[in-house]
Amino acid sequence: MDAWLPTIMPAPRSAVEQTKLDMTVARRRGSVDVGSLRSLMYGGRDAWEAHARIVRVMQADPAFNKSRRLYMTRTERYERALAMTRRIYELKDQEGWSDEETKLATRLVDENIPMTLHDLAFEPVFFAQASPSLISRYGPLIQHRGILGCYLQTELAHGTNVPALETTATYIPETQEFDIHSPTLTSSKWWIGALGKTATHGVLQARLILPGGKDHGPHLFFLQLRSLEDHKPLPGISIGDIGPKAMAGYASTDNGYARFEHVRIPRDNMLSKFAGVTPEGEYIKPPHAKMSYGGMMYIRAHFISSCGWVMAKAATVSIRYSTVRRQGNPDAVGLEQQVVSYPSVQHRLLPILARAYVFILLGRRLLTIFADTTTRLASGDTSTLADMHALTSALKSLATRHAVRDLEDARRAMGGHGYSAYAGLGRVYAEQLPLVSAEGDNYVLDKQVVRAALKAFERRDNGDRSVSAEYLRVVAGAKTPQMTPASWESFEALVLLLQWRAAKVVEDRAKRGDLDKDASADQRVATAVAEAIVAAQLGAIGSALQLKPREREIMRDLLRLYLLITTEAALVDLMSFGLVSAAAARELRTAIAKLFQPLLVEAIGLTDAFGFTDWELDSALGVYDGNVYEALWQKVQTEPLNQTEVTQAYKEHIRPLLERGRGLAVRSKL
Amino acid sequence: MDAWLPTIMPAPRSAVEQTKLDMTVARRRGSVDVGSLRSLMYGGRDAWEAHARIVRVMQADPAFNKSRRLYMTRTERYERALAMTRRIYELKDQEGWSDEETKLATRLVDENIPMTLHDLAFEPVFFAQASPSLISRYGPLIQHRGILGCYLQTELAHGTNVPALETTATYIPETQEFDIHSPTLTSSKWWIGALGKTATHGVLQARLILPGGKDHGPHLFFLQLRSLEDHKPLPGISIGDIGPKAMAGYASTDNGYARFEHVRIPRDNMLSKFAGVTPEGEYIKPPHAKMSYGGMMYIRAHFISSCGWVMAKAATVSIRYSTVRRQGNPDAVGLEQQVVSYPSVQHRLLPILARAYVFILLGRRLLTIFADTTTRLASGDTSTLADMHALTSALKSLATRHAVRDLEDARRAMGGHGYSAYAGLGRVYAEQLPLVSAEGDNYVLDKQVVRAALKAFERRDNGDRSVSAEYLRVVAGAKTPQMTPASWESFEALVLLLQWRAAKVVEDRAKRGDLDKDASADQRVATAVAEAIVAAQLGAIGSALQLKPREREIMRDLLRLYLLITTEAALVDLMSFGLVSAAAARELRTAIAKLFQPLLVEAIGLTDAFGFTDWELDSALGVYDGNVYEALWQKVQTEPLNQTEVTQAYKEHIRPLLERGRGLAVRSKL
Repeated sequence: MDAWLPTIMPAPRSAVEQTKLDMTVARRRGSVDVGSLRSLMYGGRDAWEAHARIVRVMQADPAFNKSRRLYMTRTERYERALAMTRRIYELKDQEGWSDEETKLATRLVDENIPMTLHDLAFEPVFFAQASPSLISRYGPLIQHRGILGCYLQTELAHGTNVPALETTATYIPETQEFDIHSPTLTSSKWWIGALGKTATHGVLQARLILPGGKDHGPHLFFLQLRSLEDHKPLPGISIGDIGPKAMAGYASTDNGYARFEHVRIPRDNMLSKFAGVTPEGEYIKPPHAKMSYGGMMYIRAHFISSCGWVMAKAATVSIRYSTVRRQGNPDAVGLEQQVVSYPSVQHRLLPILARAYVFILLGRRLLTIFADTTTRLASGDTSTLADMHALTSALKSLATRHAVRDLEDARRAMGGHGYSAYAGLGRVYAEQLPLVSAEGDNYVLDKQVVRAALKAFERRDNGDRSVSAEYLRVVAGAKTPQMTPASWESFEALVLLLQWRAAKVVEDRAKRGDLDKDASADQRVATAVAEAIVAAQLGAIGSALQLKPREREIMRDLLRLYLLITTEAALVDLMSFGLVSAAAARELRTAIAKLFQPLLVEAIGLTDAFGFTDWELDSALGVYDGNVYEALWQKVQTEPLNQTEVTQAYKEHIRPLLERGRGLAVRSKL
Repeated sequence: MDAWLPTIMPAPRSAVEQTKLDMTVARRRGSVDVGSLRSLMYGGRDAWEAHARIVRVMQADPAFNKSRRLYMTRTERYERALAMTRRIYELKDQEGWSDEETKLATRLVDENIPMTLHDLAFEPVFFAQASPSLISRYGPLIQHRGILGCYLQTELAHGTNVPALETTATYIPETQEFDIHSPTLTSSKWWIGALGKTATHGVLQARLILPGGKDHGPHLFFLQLRSLEDHKPLPGISIGDIGPKAMAGYASTDNGYARFEHVRIPRDNMLSKFAGVTPEGEYIKPPHAKMSYGGMMYIRAHFISSCGWVMAKAATVSIRYSTVRRQGNPDAVGLEQQVVSYPSVQHRLLPILARAYVFILLGRRLLTIFADTTTRLASGDTSTLADMHALTSALKSLATRHAVRDLEDARRAMGGHGYSAYAGLGRVYAEQLPLVSAEGDNYVLDKQVVRAALKAFERRDNGDRSVSAEYLRVVAGAKTPQMTPASWESFEALVLLLQWRAAKVVEDRAKRGDLDKDASADQRVATAVAEAIVAAQLGAIGSALQLKPREREIMRDLLRLYLLITTEAALVDLMSFGLVSAAAARELRTAIAKLFQPLLVEAIGLTDAFGFTDWELDSALGVYDGNVYEALWQKVQTEPLNQTEVTQAYKEHIRPLLERGRGLAVRSKL
């Protein structure tokens, strides 16, 4: 075990030199072609090169320098975010970046900034749901950032249950206006990104009230929030920031609140591509009740690969550090062992590496499926909408749950130094956390997944072709699989096993019904379904890989590791339904351990293939050259507390404390 | 399900009024005597009253006001920590607090401050291991805080593997001095709490080198770090702070580094109660190799109940908020359901409540067992040392892992608002995180637990009386238990089942040996052993409860919930060894759901019994009166970004961005 990465040169050597050497050796040892895997990850060589070009511009620009951000107050972080945003648009003009490249640059600043909300929520929702006349008036301003937007949905006391929102938009036929009103403190819009200090306009969810008092439930309205002259909130609107977030996450974003006191907006400001109101105040029904769900699904679909990239960061930093960090018993050449040589460390880190590959590839595939749904929707065909909803709900919940857990597991696997802010992963964790509750809380999504799965189970014999229920078709009429020691080596057998598990879990739930369910039943069913969906997609991804034999082989090993680890975590289900015996469970664990060896040799190359620069990672422990201790030392020199030899607190607090103690000590001896 | 807490008065009512009413109703509904449970938790009525008295003094004192800390830079947080420390010692003099009460006050500031290291590491290690002459010279100064200390062990490149430390203490017989030297950057002491800017002295781990060059491995030395005249580092010593920590944790503590350039200290400064060096440079061996491990075990033993109190905070805040937060489908009176009425929420929160009770009580029990070991050690009896080591290692790993997970689960169960810094739990999480890797990384401890368990298994027939291996005695010669539906109601059956599971897991590991083990084997064995130990102790705790019948009944329900939840998490083991069938697993889950109902009615009372004041919790979502929305609103007013109507960033960055965009939009229309 010690010898998987033998050291070429004899000891002794300083620990600093050893780290660099360990990294060089580990990098040389791998046999995969990093370049071709990187192209695969970025969706082609051109896409990778475009990405790399933007990174090069940004990391050379002082506006995106990250060296002081850990020491800034939140107000400074917010101001820096705006400075970066402004600079990105200067660079867009200078470098001729496309809108897509500009959005990429906005994501590359490596934290959530107010413009993200314009890019991901305000702009797409506006263009998807505004009427042509509203688009012709505001579209160009929105597109060119002549106005900045936000998306106002949740309220202080109301979250995912949109029909319960308190804010109202009451139509006044006399003036052809809507009266926007928040009757109570608890109806204040809350958590709205970019609202606190930045946005000039917004898209607002409010309950539409028509003449006679009929409540038509939540609808979307476009409205101006701040003056374009002096940026002050418009009359009748109170706006502010909702304060710092847990663990210093989202420090650069001004999540805000807003309360409306009978604010009037023109009738045309309703986003009325689907639903609308006539001048007289008659309701115009949308053609399909769920027509407006597209936006949320699009965001969720994007989450899958962005979660994959987060896992990629976690894997890169932690595997690099574990390769150069030495601790514990001497290895073959008398040095402390490389931390990555411990099986318990491999068991924590290699699955993260595998999941990163899985979710990046899966995310790209999901966007393809999504594009098909979008094309259909444009021609009024809503037949794949429910499937897409089930698919994105299931995978969003699964991917975000893994992403945040993987970040923490990777951080902890780095031991003490993992807790340094300079390690970088803690910051990413804090920044990613809201994913598990935003855009559909995972527990709420789980229930929807269960509902969709039960419906699919009911109509399983009716030729249903939905992607989210493929597992039901696969097992229909088939014999229960028998796992032999060889099955664990088979990609296809693992996919099938996870599909069988989902089918059994759903069948069991359908038979017993809601009354008999226990408190964690929904989570178990939703997890089983999501994992069966992923497994089926991996089958398709695995057979379509355009790679040379060696890279293809290692990719299949990675995907198989994902399947094995997922199967291990599903053992309670698998044993409960008699799909895996106790002896087979043991074989499964052996198969996992066996797979670690070939992957370990390639681990550095596989993380290099994610293509992160040191600027992108911003981690002293994840530096490309492995020189982690000098990197930590350099960072420490910038800590503000180190800029004076003796702290201010000495005169004010420490000296009086010491003098009191010395006095007492002297008296106690007398 | 909706009706577990029917609302007394008819709707409509504002959401703010409803929150307070929901809390009042929930509080009235419970039947347990909060006062008697609180006394139990604090170890008696007197202890509770002493605690409450100190809390009252502190929360009325402006030095401990928490309202600005979220907005402070780290330097300000550090300075505030010293201001609080000085104030605590002023109050000690004014209020006549004992040393123990003063330490309690230091813990009550609700963050890790430099003095904690003096209290928990420097002072106990010094008094346990210094020679009488060193104690007579420095003891009173240390006791009265006339000097402030730290404990210098880990180095930049060296952690838990103490023998690999690079720092040396070379004895010079000519001058009867030690020469303390850090030869390299990587030998810098690193992570040392209170070293960065505060400590005047320290206890240092360094490898003892005697004349002739013989290396005697790590030993402890007492040395001065900073001048008592002006607080500057002494000649030859470079000191600094190691920078911010992940997720803004430990912001108030100056974890530091130190490097020594041939610093001389007198021979007497070696902590030589056990090992020592003669004036001529001969080594004096300690009577027992592990004599000096007592300190670490003491700290670990204290972790158990402090983890319990952390879980108590998590449970209090999240259960209170879930009681007043309403979301989703209408309940019996037409209001959105209380979040706590969802089974999936109960499944996340009630186990945390149960674990809090378990680990607080367990911690107290462990200190009793520990006191016995200490008494024996004082008379040279080391017979219980190994058992105590196994016990504290197993429980430290288990308790810290649960504590941090419970904090995060509780925070996430609160949905969107859980991510606000004002919710309070994110801060506690960041502050508690290092527990999982400090004072023995959990993965390293797990290995030690496995080693101890395998030894115990070997000598299981030799009348071994160790507490850490009680589970082996219980199952010896007994028949495998058969779980019937009634067994899940039986406290004793659950204890026995968890003991059987540990015995089977350890036996299996012993038979197969190290060669056959997979990558996660150590964690599985260590968890099984730790949970069997806890189960056995709960048996003892459960039967010794001095409570009236109703409180006794609810306490047994809590402990049984802990056992059931632990058993559910152990299902893979239990099914693998044929101890639980698939049908029995289903009964187990039903038993858990059944237990939620009686506990839910008492949940607010059970959290009130932890006795936290609003000042202690510092959480807008965990306020005693349930008025969470107004509490959030009040906090938001203090956010620095809200002190100006228009942000500074407007003129500098937002306006130029908007002007650029407007220009482009106009041109695009031409």
